[in-house]
This record gives sequence, C-alpha cells and structure tokens, in this order.
Amino acid sequence: MDIPKTMKAAVLMGPNQVEIKEMETPSPGPQDVLIRVEACAVCGSDVSLMKKPWDGQPPYGSFIIGHEYAGTVAALGETVDEFKLGDRVAVEASFGCARCRNCRLGNYTACLNYGNLKRGHRANGFTTNGGFAQYAANQINTVHKIPDSIEFDEASLVANLGCVLYGFQTIGGYVVGDDVVVVGPGPLGIISVGVAKALCAGRVFLVGTRDSRLEVGKTMGADRLININREDPVEVVREETGGKGADLVVESSGASQGPQTALEIAKRMGKILLLGFPDEPVSANFSIMGQRNIHIYSVRGEGWANCARGVSLLEQEKISLKPLVTHSFPLAQVVEAFETFTQRIGGAIKVIVHPNQS
Amino acid sequence: MDIPKTMKAAVLMGPNQVEIKEMETPSPGPQDVLIRVEACAVCGSDVSLMKKPWDGQPPYGSFIIGHEYAGTVAALGETVDEFKLGDRVAVEASFGCARCRNCRLGNYTACLNYGNLKRGHRANGFTTNGGFAQYAANQINTVHKIPDSIEFDEASLVANLGCVLYGFQTIGGYVVGDDVVVVGPGPLGIISVGVAKALCAGRVFLVGTRDSRLEVGKTMGADRLININREDPVEVVREETGGKGADLVVESSGASQGPQTALEIAKRMGKILLLGFPDEPVSANFSIMGQRNIHIYSVRGEGWANCARGVSLLEQEKISLKPLVTHSFPLAQVVEAFETFTQRIGGAIKVIVHPNQS
Amino acid sequence: MDIPKTMKAAVLMGPNQVEIKEMETPSPGPQDVLIRVEACAVCGSDVSLMKKPWDGQPPYGSFIIGHEYAGTVAALGETVDEFKLGDRVAVEASFGCARCRNCRLGNYTACLNYGNLKRGHRANGFTTNGGFAQYAANQINTVHKIPDSIEFDEASLVANLGCVLYGFQTIGGYVVGDDVVVVGPGPLGIISVGVAKALCAGRVFLVGTRDSRLEVGKTMGADRLININREDPVEVVREETGGKGADLVVESSGASQGPQTALEIAKRMGKILLLGFPDEPVSANFSIMGQRNIHIYSVRGEGWANCARGVSLLEQEKISLKPLVTHSFPLAQVVEAFETFTQRIGGAIKVIVHPNQS
Amino acid sequence: MDIPKTMKAAVLMGPNQVEIKEMETPSPGPQDVLIRVEACAVCGSDVSLMKKPWDGQPPYGSFIIGHEYAGTVAALGETVDEFKLGDRVAVEASFGCARCRNCRLGNYTACLNYGNLKRGHRANGFTTNGGFAQYAANQINTVHKIPDSIEFDEASLVANLGCVLYGFQTIGGYVVGDDVVVVGPGPLGIISVGVAKALCAGRVFLVGTRDSRLEVGKTMGADRLININREDPVEVVREETGGKGADLVVESSGASQGPQTALEIAKRMGKILLLGFPDEPVSANFSIMGQRNIHIYSVRGEGWANCARGVSLLEQEKISLKPLVTHSFPLAQVVEAFETFTQRIGGAIKVIVHPNQS
Repeated sequence: MDIPKTMKAAVLMGPNQVEIKEMETPSPGPQDVLIRVEACAVCGSDVSLMKKPWDGQPPYGSFIIGHEYAGTVAALGETVDEFKLGDRVAVEASFGCARCRNCRLGNYTACLNYGNLKRGHRANGFTTNGGFAQYAANQINTVHKIPDSIEFDEASLVANLGCVLYGFQTIGGYVVGDDVVVVGPGPLGIISVGVAKALCAGRVFLVGTRDSRLEVGKTMGADRLININREDPVEVVREETGGKGADLVVESSGASQGPQTALEIAKRMGKILLLGFPDEPVSANFSIMGQRNIHIYSVRGEGWANCARGVSLLEQEKISLKPLVTHSFPLAQVVEAFETFTQRIGGAIKVIVHPNQS
Repeated sequence: MDIPKTMKAAVLMGPNQVEIKEMETPSPGPQDVLIRVEACAVCGSDVSLMKKPWDGQPPYGSFIIGHEYAGTVAALGETVDEFKLGDRVAVEASFGCARCRNCRLGNYTACLNYGNLKRGHRANGFTTNGGFAQYAANQINTVHKIPDSIEFDEASLVANLGCVLYGFQTIGGYVVGDDVVVVGPGPLGIISVGVAKALCAGRVFLVGTRDSRLEVGKTMGADRLININREDPVEVVREETGGKGADLVVESSGASQGPQTALEIAKRMGKILLLGFPDEPVSANFSIMGQRNIHIYSVRGEGWANCARGVSLLEQEKISLKPLVTHSFPLAQVVEAFETFTQRIGGAIKVIVHPNQS
Repeated sequence: MDIPKTMKAAVLMGPNQVEIKEMETPSPGPQDVLIRVEACAVCGSDVSLMKKPWDGQPPYGSFIIGHEYAGTVAALGETVDEFKLGDRVAVEASFGCARCRNCRLGNYTACLNYGNLKRGHRANGFTTNGGFAQYAANQINTVHKIPDSIEFDEASLVANLGCVLYGFQTIGGYVVGDDVVVVGPGPLGIISVGVAKALCAGRVFLVGTRDSRLEVGKTMGADRLININREDPVEVVREETGGKGADLVVESSGASQGPQTALEIAKRMGKILLLGFPDEPVSANFSIMGQRNIHIYSVRGEGWANCARGVSLLEQEKISLKPLVTHSFPLAQVVEAFETFTQRIGGAIKVIVHPNQS
Repeated sequence: MDIPKTMKAAVLMGPNQVEIKEMETPSPGPQDVLIRVEACAVCGSDVSLMKKPWDGQPPYGSFIIGHEYAGTVAALGETVDEFKLGDRVAVEASFGCARCRNCRLGNYTACLNYGNLKRGHRANGFTTNGGFAQYAANQINTVHKIPDSIEFDEASLVANLGCVLYGFQTIGGYVVGDDVVVVGPGPLGIISVGVAKALCAGRVFLVGTRDSRLEVGKTMGADRLININREDPVEVVREETGGKGADLVVESSGASQGPQTALEIAKRMGKILLLGFPDEPVSANFSIMGQRNIHIYSVRGEGWANCARGVSLLEQEKISLKPLVTHSFPLAQVVEAFETFTQRIGGAIKVIVHPNQS
C-alpha cells in the first residue's frame, strides 16, 4: 500500500476547538501497525477532554483526538509478523507502558505511568494521537483482527463492548441466571443489557428516563423497562425479585442519585458496577454497603484484553452493536459529528466519522 | 393432595440387584418438601454404586436409588413456605450436612461429614433415599422450581447441567471468546459443549470415537468434531489455534489417556476440567503442568447452587437437554431402563424412569 | 455440669434501657451447645441497637443482648459430638438460616432470611438471644474451640478479628508487600493494623485524631502514624509511596469524609475496604473510582468461618488482642460497662462483662 | 562506573560443558539496566538445560547460563529513571515478550512467544544471556531493588521465593489457619514451609527422606516433620487433622509417587500445588479428584511480580533464605559449584557463584 507522507486529521486546537489539519502520517514503531482508519466513533470522553484537558493530554495544536476506531493494516512495524497488510482490525485505546507494576500484572488501563511518554505510556486519543485521522499507529497489543462479517462502523465500537466486558469480568464474569439491573440507557448501558443477556443473566431490567432509549435496550434483550418518570425502580426491582433485590446493578447513568439508587436496588451480597459517574461529588448512604455486604466495582477503559473477547462476541452474533450506530459523517464534518452526538440530534446514540471517505 | 402411606420404589437388594418394593412413603422433615416424582434419570453413578457400594451408602434392602429427578410438590415440611403444593420442581442430590466447615462455606458437595447421618448429611440416592420411587423427601436447598415450559424428563437432568455449570464456575466462569475442547461425548461432555457455547466460548471442539455421539454434540453447538479414529486431537487443536492450544479442556471421557491428552491440548496458562475419570490409576506427564503453567480442576456433584442457574439456562432456552433424553420406561421396568443405559441400546444417552406412570 | 433452670441476663427493656433479669436458661437445640459465658464484650453494634431497634430484633423485655462472647461448653445438643463438656470456646454471632441462597453459598452473614425465625435465622445478640447472660445456646457452626493459651477476655473479641479477616479475605486475602492505610484507630482499625502486619503487608499507615489510640496501633505493628490534626494523610501517603498511593485502604473511622479520603489515598487499581460507616449519607467523588479503576468492598459481620482462622492467628501469636481489653465488669454492672465504652472513660477501647463473676 | 568492554562469563559449550570465556559486556537496551553481578545461584533448571537443551535455548558457544542473581546497577538504559547507578538489586528470569495475550494479561512466565526473540521474548539464563557473568542486562520489570539489610547471596534466591509466592498466590493466597503439607525438603519445599508459616498457616507438615534436610525445614518453621522411611505421611496427616486431610499440599519432591501421595493427603475441597515434577510420566488415581473435589495447580517460574513481594518478605524478616545458602565459589570455580550442588557435597542446598570475586 502506498502511504502518503501527510494526512488529514482532526486536531484539538483549544478548548472545544477541533480543526481538520494536514498532519504528518505517523510511522509505525517496531511493535506497531499503521492503520488506515475507516471509522472512528465519537465518545463521551472525547467531549470531556475537548472541554477541559485530561491529565497527560498532548498540547493544543498537536493532538489528534479519537480512540474508538477500526480500519485496515496499512504498514507493519519492523518486528511485526502477527498481522499482514490489509487485515481488517479494531483497536483499544490503552497500550499502557508495559513497565509499571500495574501493566506488568495485566492492568494496563490503570497504568501507573499514565501520561509519562518517556516511560512508554500510550493511550491513543488520550496521551498519544488517535483515530480521527486518515492513519493511526497502534502497538499490536491494542489491535484486534476482525472478520469480514463485522463492518467497520460496528467494529469502531469494540472498545465500548470491551469496556463493558471488562466490567463484567471484574465483577466475576459469571452471571448465569442472575438478576441484573442496568441504570442509564446510554451506549454503555445498552451494551450492558446485551452483555448481560449474552452471558445468560436471568432477568435484565433497564432503567431510564426516555422511552426511545429504553426501547433500544429492549432490542438488546432487556426483559423489563422501567421509566423512572412513571415507576420507582427500587420498588419495582424489590417486588419483582421476591423482595431480594438485584444480584448485579450496573450504574451507567452518571446521574447524581445513581450510586444511592444502586445501593438500594442491590441484594444482600449483591454487586454494583459503576460505568457512569456524576461530574461532582454526590451523596450516598455507605452504611447500606455494610448492612448488606455489598461491593462497588469500577473499571477504567477496556482492560484484560476484553476487546478480543468482544470481537468474538460480535462474530458469534451473540450481540449486535448496530442499533447503536445512528449517524455517520466524513472527517470534514467532524464538528457536525460532535454536535449531533452531544445534542442527540435525531436520536443520536453513537456517531461515526469516516476519515477516508469524502 | 392425598399421600398414600406406602409407595412403589426401586430398592437395591444386593450387588446389581434392584427390585421394585412397596416402601413407606417418606414424610417430609421440617425443612423438606415431599416430591411426587414424575421422572428420574439413570446416571453412571447409579451403575457404579449398584455394582459396588459407595462410601456411606445405606444397607441393601433399604436403599432407594436415584438422584436425578423432577416432579411436583406433594407436601410441605412444617417450616416451609418457600414452596406451595403443586409446584413443579427439579432436584439436586446433595444437601450436605450444613454444619461442617465445607458446608458452612458453601461447598456442600464436598461435605466433610459425608455419610454421617447423625450429623445430618443427606445426599439423596447416595446416603439417603432417592428418586426411583413414587415419592421422595428433599430439604428445600436441593429443590428448584421449574416453569411449565420445562418438561419433567428434561428437568430430571438439571443435576447434570448443574454439575457442568459448577465445573465452569470452578474454572472461572468466564470463557467469552475462549477456545474450548471437550473430550468425550457422554452426557456431561455433550452438556459441556452446550454450556461452553451458551457462555460464549469462541471455538468449541468435541473429541470422541463415535460419529453418532459427535453428531449430538454438533446439535449442541460444537464447531469442530474430531473423531480420534481418524484425526489426532492434539495436532488438530494445535493447528487450528495457531499453535497455542486450548484455553480450556474439559475431559469427560474417563479414558485412560484422558488426563495426558488434556495436558497436551491445553495452552500455556490453560485450564483443564476433569469431569470423567478412569477407574484405575493412569499415567500422565505432570511436568507439562509446570512447563505450561497449567491447572487441573475437578468437581464433585452439582455445587454452588448451579442447579438453580441451570433451570434458568433451560428457561432462557440457551441450552436444551432434550437431545439427551433418548428413552423412557415406567418404574416397573427399571431393570430394562438400566440395561438400556449401560448397553447403550438404541443409541441410548439418558434413560428416564417415570415412577408414577404405568 | 449442673445447669440452673434460670440465670441472670442483661435484657433490653426499652431504648437505652438494660436491666439484669432472671431469665430461663436456654436449652440447646439438636445442633447446639450451651455455653457458660465467661466474657462478653461491648460492641458499637450493641450501642446502636439499644438506641434504636435493628431490623429483626426481638421485642423489649425479652431480648438478651451481646454477641461477642466466650466461655465453656456446659451442655450438648442431642446430635452434637464435635464438642465435649468443658471445652473452652469463642463464638461468632451469625448462624444465618442455612436455607436461603446466600447461606447455601456460604454467605451466612448476608442471610436473605435475616430476622425470619420461622425459616431458622439466628444471629445471637441481634435476632436471637445473646451473651450478656450466664448461659447462651449456639448452633455449632458459630462455636470455635480455643486453646488454654487464649484467655476468655481476649477470646470474646474473636468475632472482631473474624470480621477484619473476612474483610481481608474479601479484598483478596493476599497482601504480601502491599502498602496498607488504615483510617480510624477504633477496635476494628487497630485489629486491621495487626492483621495487615500478620499477613505480611509492606508498610502499614494508621490515620487518626488521637495520639493515644494511634500509639495502640503502633503496638500492633503500624509503621507510620498520621495524626490528621498535624498531617494530611493524602499527602503523606502519596509522598511516601512514590506518588502511587496505597494498594489497600481500610476505612474504619466512620467519619463523614471517610469514603472520600479513602478514594484519594488509593492507588490506581487499589482497593478500599469499608469497615466503618457514617450514620448519614455523605458525599464522595465516585468518578475517582473510574479514573483509577478502584473497587470498594464492605463486609457484614464475621463471615466465611474467619473466626476459626482468627483463633488460629491468636494461637500462633501472630496477633494479640490484649491491648484492646482495657476494662472489665461483672454482669451486675453492665450499665457501667456500656458507659465506660461509649464515653471512653479511662481510655476505654473494649470493655468486657463477666456474667459468671460477681 | 567504568564498564569494561569484555567480561568473564560461564558459557555453555556443549552438553554438561561449561567454560569461563571472555565475552562482550552486554549493553543495556532502552528499558534495561546493566547489573554488575555479585551473586548467582545454581538452580536445578541450570542442571537440566546443561544436560539437554531446553526449548528456545541459544546455541552452544554463545549462551551464558544462570538466572538467579543479584548485584548492583552499573548502567542505565536510555529511558530508565526508575533506578540509579549503584542500586542494589535482585532479578527474576522472565521478562516475557510483553506482546502476546498471556503477557498482556500479566502471565509473562507463560509467554506464548517463549523463545521467539524477534517478538521480544527474554528469559535470562534460558532464552537470553544470564547471570554467571560479571555483568548482565535486564529489562527493568525483572529487576527489584533490595535494601542494604539483604545480602547478595540471599538476594540471589529471590526468584526461588518469588516462585513459591507465585504458587501460593495461585492457590488463593489466603491460608490463615489452614493445614499445609509440604512434600520434599528441597529448596522450593523448604521455602514453601517458610512461606506457609509467614502467611499464618495453621500446622505445617514437612515430609521427606533425609533428617538433615527435614531439620532445615524445622528452622523455617515446620511444626511436624515426617520422615517417610519411618512414618506414612498419609496416615499421619489424616490422623493429626481429625481425619480430614490437608487444606493444601505442596508437592515439591518430584518423586514418582508425588502426585498420588498429594491426592491421598488432600482434604475434600483441598488444593494441591505442584512445584516438583518427575522426569517421566507417572501414575495417579485421578478419580480421587472427583470424589473429593480437589484441584491441582502448578506454576512456571516466578510470576505476577512476586519477586517484589519476596523482597518485602525478606526485608520484613518474615522469612530468611540464609539457611539455604550453604556454599559459595568464585566464577572460576563454576564447575565445582555445579558439582557441589548436584552431588550435594557437604549437605549443599543452594550454591552461590560470585562472578566479581576472585
């Protein structure tokens, strides 16, 4: 493949200021592949770091954003024989540093050298350049082959699926027959419904405020929709679980009452997985944790190689992420893409940018 | 419901000698339900303990065999309000003793008071009376409600499913995308294929000697059948996993080369689950365990309440046990039922006895 | 031994109203032992439930409080051969019900039938009678033999030790070389220091407000004392762990800023164990959990047979609870005992009542 | 520090043929430190690979053996700021490749690219050059600072301690009060005794054939020595555990009856950790695993950063490896060092070589 020396990329120029620039095409390091990006999805994290820089973020003017992408292998690093040119691939954001204690133990999304590029940390779209660009270079640990049956748009969401799977693995990974409540039908919440069902959870409740989003959760397999404008989720779950409460609550709404609601819904010995977070400190009655022997888990990113597991789940058709893909734009319209996502124009859930289409 | 004072039951009178006798109908203890048995399946364990008494087994002439059964609740122990008359239920064999250290910790199938009835141990069909009878009394921990959608014949196999699920939970419970090899297409092996697929394993290989049994495994979802009369499973698995080997090997053949084959098939850091066992000591190269950092797990019975999870799996239609139910007989023909099972007459896999049909 | 028909016991007559009454001596059930109580410790839970009844608590006038006790076996239930008369024993509070799903799985302190006596729940001193009495009846699962080397006063604190051990087992049980921060030098905090050191934690920091209590923690092995009136624990821990934070934070202060402080002290991928709880909902920045991949665990009571492990720890002299035993009283002075405890008269940490001494 | 261009090193020239050669001093890669080796211990693995090359081993004439060493940092790779010149350090052998699935998940001793140097695998003393040399280059993940209180001879054994700790972490890491049986008082067995005691195991039994070695185990804390020439370990353990058997059996003898003995000693729900292996396949009755719900674990090398934990254990003086250090030699006498080790001359347990002493 012929790689151009420069490429078009969405560069963060200042707060909430993204521009399409001509940038040098990255060259893959010894353990990297260069990916021709076909689809890169807008994520809430992008919106957040565009507003206010995250820890370890490159300076304005040089930082290509975007961490959820898929494409084809366009060049190989000198030591790489695990991939070949033309392979269709999806990525995860975090390489980590491969040299701190957390990375050494496989917990690379919790890298202790986060943002320390000298020590080798890389998290594309966060501390190193990302995928709203025609090309991106990824260390091979962050790259996963995808079969022809998975389209690039859906594949760009593999990191979302990997994140949810990482959460489910963190809480034990085994939920056969368990009652699961998902609060918040955003992308991670909707995927959580699908993962819970794929992993053979018993009843899956989805809690939210908008019927249209709840209905998307239903197509993912939710057994019971609870619109909190009409029903009290704590009462409904208690009543429909024989007074016990849920084995697992996935809180992904990020609403201020989220943690407290999760505590009230969980069963004795139940588990809570936080995937969404309020921006500010919020209040919760922690003593419920002691009374009911409850644990609260959280995850950062898409750890423990769960993106590879996610690709398998898609390939098996145990879950489909297509209902989440509502809009797409060429790279030139990246600003419109972000607007569509943040303002949920036309019921937008996930918005995809196609850097190599015009 | 009107409970007769006596009932017909299959009583073990001597080695391999089962007779239908008129026995006193059991009365449920304070925490028991009395079950009108509609279906009781023949298991390899029955065959084994009929041949030579197991540890803790009641004396000949008084022991009603059978531990895989389903039926309806016919009477309630004095403290029981968790069930109501007429509830359709399936059972697991082991109550345990609820007072040794293992039972206290939830490991009731590994009860340290096994066979000690004074200390309260109960394992119906092993140390206390079982289900080849018109009625059986079960402590409620061993009883699981089933929905109308599950027929009694299939429900009688819930303990088999619970055993396999217990095995999968033991090895970690999370196999999304993992390559699994099942050796031995007996009932537990075939169910292992179904469970692996339900839990979203990647590729599932089934290894055996008879094509007819392998084909049953295919209906359960096996991706690749290996008849060892025609192919070498170690070579095939290595080749088709890119040289790595399997993440999990379920050895359920009980063949003498079973453990060694499993060791050769497993990946570095892979796991082996033994569900079948040779009668005699057999040879294996344990140093492979050290070279490849392999662990070998085994389970006794259907622990950790996995029968409840199994009922859910059936209700969700994530797995069907119907392909295993090949034959059924009334109680009067219990001897024919055992012959059909042991000699695999007519391709028998699981053979069911109907104690209340004639 | 000659068991009197009646005995003296501390009965809860109304809110914060305890009286010594002549009560019927309990008779042990089939799986119980009767214990002649030699020492029963005052616990913060006692203080709480005396103030306002806990869920499932017996009515005023009939409820003997006290759940941390030790004594000798005075009579055996009809099926009990695990103990003999005169055995010296310590107890844990929760039998559970042995028939709900949580108890079945070994999680008896999180019993789903909590307070449901018909279904067999027992938690002495909470839902059934306790140990501020000359005799108490305990199901044998809740009774642990102690060697002569452990005195009754220390033995009465076994449940405290069991609770801390249960917490450490819950967070993984393996802390060799890890940095541990304990916040709050109350009884559970001080024991947490000792347990962390016994389990070979690396550096153990103890955070508190009173130097006298911190010094007790030092005798238990704390490597670094932080008085928050003089130093900022977040800064100190960050600085002395090379900027990383603690592998484990045990929050046992119950202070309103406790959870938030713990979140700020924990390392990426670190764990938090809550053993103390504010009475009211308090505020915390949950998004730290997601940024740092942190989990928060809590435990109720002394689960997973950790009291047996605690006895071993005492026997091995890996930890001593004697520094916690500051005061003792005869049963007649139970009210003074409670005052001494709640008002921390004379630097009281744990206050012991001797029901059979006068 | 002034690094000479060449150095003396023990090079494997052919089967069982080691010669001291003048070799080029390695230069540290970007993530390496160069270590001036002060002590390198002889290990059974060295003996094995000298006899017959292991998988992935460099060719005769170029391969410097030795993987258990300690020394001082003599030079820093270009990106390394985690160490400084003069730091005293101990090493572990396996870097792994940091790019296969196992390494990515923290299981670097089970690297799927073992021996594939192009893909970056390094295991010093196995697939890359080791420590029987004046200098060795190590990726920093494999290097651990040691305090002044730990001498180099003892520090050279950190990988042994790390291996045993890895084994204990693998079986769950929490053995407080558990009964542990160690079979085989070789270096790993003796260390297993010490680790079990450090982790607060209840009774620790040590089984062997030679009283002198058993006595060393006693200095490490063994509670009960069993010389199998005089006592049957299965009987003794059953009797002294109230008929239950051991919670954990560490088989490190590598004797042909080792696995079978371990199976007979383990409790229902007990665990077996294999650290020693017979050279040839041996016979075992696997059905015991199913009857008793037993799992068998094994580990390769010193995984999950347990060498760092081991350094902490030494620093805390929770264990001492000094009783294992029986002999030492200068590098020039490396052949004598090996003879002393293999023939156990003078009761040799661990034999240390000092490459920079003459």
